[in-house]
Amino acid sequence: MRPFISATPAPPYYAVIFTNIHSREISGYEETAERMLELAKIQRGFLGVESTRNQDGNGITVSYWNSLEDIRNWKEQIEHRKAQESGKTKWYLEYTLRIAKVETEYSLVKSELPGS
Amino acid sequence: MRPFISATPAPPYYAVIFTNIHSREISGYEETAERMLELAKIQRGFLGVESTRNQDGNGITVSYWNSLEDIRNWKEQIEHRKAQESGKTKWYLEYTLRIAKVETEYSLVKSELPGS
Repeated sequence: MRPFISATPAPPYYAVIFTNIHSREISGYEETAERMLELAKIQRGFLGVESTRNQDGNGITVSYWNSLEDIRNWKEQIEHRKAQESGKTKWYLEYTLRIAKVETEYSLVKSELPGS
Repeated sequence: MRPFISATPAPPYYAVIFTNIHSREISGYEETAERMLELAKIQRGFLGVESTRNQDGNGITVSYWNSLEDIRNWKEQIEHRKAQESGKTKWYLEYTLRIAKVETEYSLVKSELPGS
């Protein structure tokens, strides 16, 4: 299984913080999300992604990128553009997307972590 | 109810992205999380917080702040320091904390959003 927390390099790098609320119309969402992950992984500059959603449909996805140019290229990727359109019209009731430059990072990793 | 997505001001401002995995030892966590939210709200420079966790215990909390100094002051707040210590020793199996400068923000808000 893909680990939840991304092993990003030493800063600086960029984060796209996507906070969203699902609508009730989520047909096709899961397949598209899986496909977008596959595509993102082969995009230049992709460093990782962390994503979670609670039972109320409140989700946060943070993806990490080498540069602003890499983020722009991913935004314009043709299949991703179609997914964004479905997101706007169907899957999301509301969202905010923020692009931020990561300056500091630190982690807690316990030695007893299963599978590590 | 507190809305899920924070109404942050125009960038630039700062984000603290806290990605974490809960351990099985979460006694006292909920009360402390509520208390930390109360305290954060009255800290100088606090702009909002977004938080979600899935059923596997994978959580992302993003808090927003006016400046790096505001983030440092919150980190050093005495009651918050105790909470951080409990987080390290008890509640979290693993976490990564990233501090990032938000440079761009945009939102989708639909007019049919309930309560808006």
